[in-house]
Amino acid sequence: MRISTLSIGDELVCGQLTDTNAGTIAAVLLAEGLRIQRHHAVGDVEPDIIGALNDLGRGSDAIIVTGGLGPTADDMTSRAAARATGRRLVINEEARNHVRLMSGRLKSLILCPLSDKQAMIPTKSTLIPNPNGTACGFYLMHNGCFMFFMPGVPSEMIVMLRETVIPFIQERVVHKRVIRSASLNVFGPCEAEVDELLLGIACPEQGLALGICVTFPWMKVTLRAEADNDDAVTGLLVPAISAVRERLKEYCFSSGDISMDDVVAELFRDRCLTLSLAESCSGGLIAKRITDIPGSSRYFSEGVVTYSNSAKKRLLGIPAELLNSCGAVSSECAAAMSKGVRAASGSDLGLAVTGIAGPEGGSDDKPVGTVFISLAAPDGCWTKRFQFSGNRNEIRVMTAWTALDWLRRYLLRRE
Amino acid sequence: MRISTLSIGDELVCGQLTDTNAGTIAAVLLAEGLRIQRHHAVGDVEPDIIGALNDLGRGSDAIIVTGGLGPTADDMTSRAAARATGRRLVINEEARNHVRLMSGRLKSLILCPLSDKQAMIPTKSTLIPNPNGTACGFYLMHNGCFMFFMPGVPSEMIVMLRETVIPFIQERVVHKRVIRSASLNVFGPCEAEVDELLLGIACPEQGLALGICVTFPWMKVTLRAEADNDDAVTGLLVPAISAVRERLKEYCFSSGDISMDDVVAELFRDRCLTLSLAESCSGGLIAKRITDIPGSSRYFSEGVVTYSNSAKKRLLGIPAELLNSCGAVSSECAAAMSKGVRAASGSDLGLAVTGIAGPEGGSDDKPVGTVFISLAAPDGCWTKRFQFSGNRNEIRVMTAWTALDWLRRYLLRRE
Repeated sequence: MRISTLSIGDELVCGQLTDTNAGTIAAVLLAEGLRIQRHHAVGDVEPDIIGALNDLGRGSDAIIVTGGLGPTADDMTSRAAARATGRRLVINEEARNHVRLMSGRLKSLILCPLSDKQAMIPTKSTLIPNPNGTACGFYLMHNGCFMFFMPGVPSEMIVMLRETVIPFIQERVVHKRVIRSASLNVFGPCEAEVDELLLGIACPEQGLALGICVTFPWMKVTLRAEADNDDAVTGLLVPAISAVRERLKEYCFSSGDISMDDVVAELFRDRCLTLSLAESCSGGLIAKRITDIPGSSRYFSEGVVTYSNSAKKRLLGIPAELLNSCGAVSSECAAAMSKGVRAASGSDLGLAVTGIAGPEGGSDDKPVGTVFISLAAPDGCWTKRFQFSGNRNEIRVMTAWTALDWLRRYLLRRE
Repeated sequence: MRISTLSIGDELVCGQLTDTNAGTIAAVLLAEGLRIQRHHAVGDVEPDIIGALNDLGRGSDAIIVTGGLGPTADDMTSRAAARATGRRLVINEEARNHVRLMSGRLKSLILCPLSDKQAMIPTKSTLIPNPNGTACGFYLMHNGCFMFFMPGVPSEMIVMLRETVIPFIQERVVHKRVIRSASLNVFGPCEAEVDELLLGIACPEQGLALGICVTFPWMKVTLRAEADNDDAVTGLLVPAISAVRERLKEYCFSSGDISMDDVVAELFRDRCLTLSLAESCSGGLIAKRITDIPGSSRYFSEGVVTYSNSAKKRLLGIPAELLNSCGAVSSECAAAMSKGVRAASGSDLGLAVTGIAGPEGGSDDKPVGTVFISLAAPDGCWTKRFQFSGNRNEIRVMTAWTALDWLRRYLLRRE
């Protein structure tokens, strides 16, 4: 089945917004064994949209279109779809009810005449339900090509893609080639190291591909197997996954979409331990990531962001002499912070970071990127100096990742 | 001049890599007064590349192509370009010398027979120098359309675009149109409200376009003016910017690339005030955003993430009776938190948030999304209840944005 995508929006062809929908749709379809052949993008210009639908329609069995279904005047995808396929644009009662229902639920949209615009759908179309927004999607068949229209908002689009578009396409795929992929997430080594560790696992001529995708500061190793049937794909994929795990060992922190934060949360729940945090240079980033996870209140009691020395003294009981003799960015201070927050909060683990995120504040001894991480636990206190590179944001992100990876490795060793 | 872009690469149509070149080229060209009309992307598949060049060639005066010029077998853009334009593919001596020179300099490529592949260029083409990589680019004219071919590596592509492609195009633009844009950033109202407030400002027939781009939870209003000369563009743009500012009033928090965080930081520096934070449901997110900004240690002294009730009592001095009678998610508790953290830290302002981010913990009285924000200042203490919708992440993001917007509005009123 030849499938194409079309992204519509002035902000895309003006470079104001990166078109992430194209990649997302391609990745989700590929995981289902479906491949995108071509992708087009045009602005909110009716003749350009009509032209793209015609161009893509000629060589495709299906076109997945995103964008331009909003309530405002510059959204004109529905009208262009109607013109391109020789249909009339009419008010769809089901869509109108949906717009009203969702407007009420979201409480963010004033019901005004504009809203009916989102209920204008080409005739002889079927609605694609949108549980997360006001804009209904729709699909229609024109000259042997299915055209699916969805809003461009990624969180709305993805649900509609998974719940309606993909099942619809899957039902119509005749000769199915089985494609399956698996991914493992890696933190610690650099890309070249991972590349070397995984040498020889890929085998493209047999249908087994391996890719490394770096998303600072971690990376994703993806294995993709393609064969005629499910068993053959399993036969390629399963041993390859084991081999990757074997070679990467503790560097590999999870598989699929499971984040480092998820892994740490899971380990805390499993081990029935509690955590408190004392952050300086990371400024709340670690607490934010810990509390991103629903239910984190069960193991996370408190965090302090002690940016000033007076806060370090008052909230963590760091002696003034220590701050004077060793400085706030020191192994001694980090250890005192982790022990201090653990003692004050009464939690099982106390994690502390102090460092210089820059761009100012570095010295010859302690240049920008110097970070001390300390973990106080019932069985000891460990403190280590790190030297990170990059800008302020990169140093803070690396600090938080390294601290969370420390927690992960500590919790893994505790049964 | 009608200009299109074409991105080539399996990794793009498989969704392994987001196509950032398309947006980069569009943005760089727009700044030069040139507009991208259409964008296509195809995999490393010869017939697809030829098809795209033919499709785009029909309606364009220039096509800017990136990707598929590498040394490996799956890079086949040069051959496809030759076939699509009826040329032969021959070794170009200048390109060969460049490949050898750069291979030596980059020390990353072993000189092997493959390397000559990068020197194979369609006849009747002109090379585009690539100071940062082995792959030469080239351009040619076919059926009245200029086709520019560059490698997909962003750092190589951008230099070639700026140094060769854009000057070449600019020289040939006969009737030069001046395009300039400006943007204003808005927080508070929904898209439909903004649309209504700005009704009548856009005037496409005179060359003044207005777009609203929603990036949860804020939006960007972009004005784009196009005219024959600089004065006419200024005449369109300047009054339109004033009109948008006038109508959106305090909803508009900044212009261009200046973030809400930047604005708040700038105001704190200006007003010489200090801040401390007490966060519950936002879990450190506000502290993280405050400390994202370099130099924030000058006005931010400390933050506490008081997730547990015991932390609220110990770190903020919230009386147990208050927690028992009103609950931790209450106006009373929020006010006690903001006053508590202000008093403990001795800072000018104390900002506190407490709420239910979900997915659990809601009740009929206080459903998920209930958030209290409180600001304690020298001239009073203000507390307000908000009801946000969305998932845990969206509620937390909305909480942080609303709290920062409160700070902004308070600081704006203080001279």
